[in-house]
Amino acid sequence: MKTRAAVAFEAKKPLEIVEVDLEGPKTGEVLVEIMATGICHTDAYTLDGLDSEGLFPSILGHEGAGIVREVGPGVTSVKPGDHVIPLYTPECRQCKSCLSGKTNLCTAIRATQGKGLMPDGTSRFSYKGQPIFHYMGCSTFSNFTVLPEIALAKIRDDAPFNTSCYIGCGVTTGVGAVVKTAKVEPGANVVVFGLGGIGLNVIQGARMVGADKIVGVDINDSKEEWGRRFGMTHFVNPKKVEGDIVQHLVALTDGGADYTFDCTGNTVVMRQALEACHRGWGVSVVIGVAEAGKEISTRPFQLVTGRVWKGSAFGGAKGRTDVPKIVDWYMNGKIQIDPMITHTLSLDEINKGFDLMHAGESIRSVVVY
Amino acid sequence: MKTRAAVAFEAKKPLEIVEVDLEGPKTGEVLVEIMATGICHTDAYTLDGLDSEGLFPSILGHEGAGIVREVGPGVTSVKPGDHVIPLYTPECRQCKSCLSGKTNLCTAIRATQGKGLMPDGTSRFSYKGQPIFHYMGCSTFSNFTVLPEIALAKIRDDAPFNTSCYIGCGVTTGVGAVVKTAKVEPGANVVVFGLGGIGLNVIQGARMVGADKIVGVDINDSKEEWGRRFGMTHFVNPKKVEGDIVQHLVALTDGGADYTFDCTGNTVVMRQALEACHRGWGVSVVIGVAEAGKEISTRPFQLVTGRVWKGSAFGGAKGRTDVPKIVDWYMNGKIQIDPMITHTLSLDEINKGFDLMHAGESIRSVVVY
Repeated sequence: MKTRAAVAFEAKKPLEIVEVDLEGPKTGEVLVEIMATGICHTDAYTLDGLDSEGLFPSILGHEGAGIVREVGPGVTSVKPGDHVIPLYTPECRQCKSCLSGKTNLCTAIRATQGKGLMPDGTSRFSYKGQPIFHYMGCSTFSNFTVLPEIALAKIRDDAPFNTSCYIGCGVTTGVGAVVKTAKVEPGANVVVFGLGGIGLNVIQGARMVGADKIVGVDINDSKEEWGRRFGMTHFVNPKKVEGDIVQHLVALTDGGADYTFDCTGNTVVMRQALEACHRGWGVSVVIGVAEAGKEISTRPFQLVTGRVWKGSAFGGAKGRTDVPKIVDWYMNGKIQIDPMITHTLSLDEINKGFDLMHAGESIRSVVVY
Repeated sequence: MKTRAAVAFEAKKPLEIVEVDLEGPKTGEVLVEIMATGICHTDAYTLDGLDSEGLFPSILGHEGAGIVREVGPGVTSVKPGDHVIPLYTPECRQCKSCLSGKTNLCTAIRATQGKGLMPDGTSRFSYKGQPIFHYMGCSTFSNFTVLPEIALAKIRDDAPFNTSCYIGCGVTTGVGAVVKTAKVEPGANVVVFGLGGIGLNVIQGARMVGADKIVGVDINDSKEEWGRRFGMTHFVNPKKVEGDIVQHLVALTDGGADYTFDCTGNTVVMRQALEACHRGWGVSVVIGVAEAGKEISTRPFQLVTGRVWKGSAFGGAKGRTDVPKIVDWYMNGKIQIDPMITHTLSLDEINKGFDLMHAGESIRSVVVY
């Protein structure tokens, strides 16, 4: 079949909206009509050529929501008409990682996904006879795409596509880091570094689970209003703090935070996040993706005296199991998404979405097909 | 009263065995006759002048076992005749840390203990009229010593002093790191870096809880026999591994260890220990104390992909609650101590114990009064 898609023919160039060829689903695969997709920093990271493993030409996009239109042989968990969210972290429920019960980092199709291919080692997309790579196993910048069955979360039919698509990455990454990775408990004091989309979702996750102090840290004062809208109780601009930011945060949280979250990708901030944790039990979660080659450091004394350093990918959420629950939380009003969708675009306007992101003018831009 | 003690009059000098004056216990304090004490690397670290906060003159020693001889006003949890292990990490059960249920790092008397004083801000020891500092709140290199009630674990009467004293530091630090800090589960794969006394106790802790592979790593081949005696299943000498030690250990543990423990104090090894953990869930525990100023580093990607970096002090054990249980494990044969006590000395021979340690010829030397 043919489908309209935004193709990244090469790095550092705008996407081109063209008609591409899409093969139907093979065994274990599913054809999905994407109804909406967010534009995420990770897409920009690849498009800007910063990801050394980025492949071109490819169809980017990994934060979508859509409807199953056709299933390949052997598919049992979804059927045409089902509403779904594509999963860049699949959940096969069969591999060592899934069966461990300790991680969401399913390894079933990791090798081929990393090569921009379907599990059988080929691509379903082509343009003028030349294959086009899949991206993060999703390629939601195409109106129709093909995914493995294990990479689809079936969600309720009444969730709007143009907001629930954000659950495919940003919402789950932030809320999940609180709920699944850190397991923040009611009454905990939380510090969130970086109040972009991920940080705001960490904040509302902390509010949802009943955290006490929710301190937001950002060098941009304009983020304060955004933070407070989602549950932030205190705002700190490090540029306006006299003395050491870590000591300031330790004092503000009565000895240190129970949980801190880095949503900046800055390795200096990651260290501050660890050291702002409470002696004895504070847990710091790295969410942000650092520049290639950058390292985090601290004195081991910080760990020996009880602080814990960990990380979170896709919020520690198991896609097929947890994503439908997060959709429920959204539909039940436990978390908000609508105010975060600052821009709604057509596919033809997708490059504008990247421009808005680079200019820091959007929380989330969503393309609606 | 008078008591014989080994006094550290100044750094880098041998201890001197003299009679010192000891005041009786004040409110909340207890007079203990020390029956045996281990000589630990931490004592040597202070005596060698490496601890910038080390105080002199002082009576070192923090790994003892003894008998309560007199209690001060208000003491309710122990009585004369009780067998006890002094606790350099007390357990007041009243402070924020104790009440958190999340840490063993009681803060009730931390400030005065760090100054070499009893909680009322004075010392009980003196020599020729000049005060002598307490050490780690214990000073077990004195035949009699005074401790706060909250710094005494009451243990069973049939436990031999000359072996159970080791539970006052080394045994609990190693076994506790496995049981309390890491919570290693049956069937887990474990890698232990550094097969000194702590490493051997980590190994036997891992054996006790039913770990599967227990890999010991040491640059000294003579440690292999020691490791196997306590449950080590595989030995790796990094000097004899071709290629990267981390990749070697990942292969040996089928994708990475479930738990790793650094018992070396070397920050380069600490990084290896983290990176030898399994993607998705491996937990690395820092036990070793690093040189002043040294830092640990890694790529944040190691954390984002599911590895956890934490530390352990006194094995995460709550002294009054957990130490008596560890004594039970020893008496019930779940863990061994006797083979680790390589040298038994009199107080007059205590400097020989330090020499043996520096020469690497002892696992543990114990002074029996």
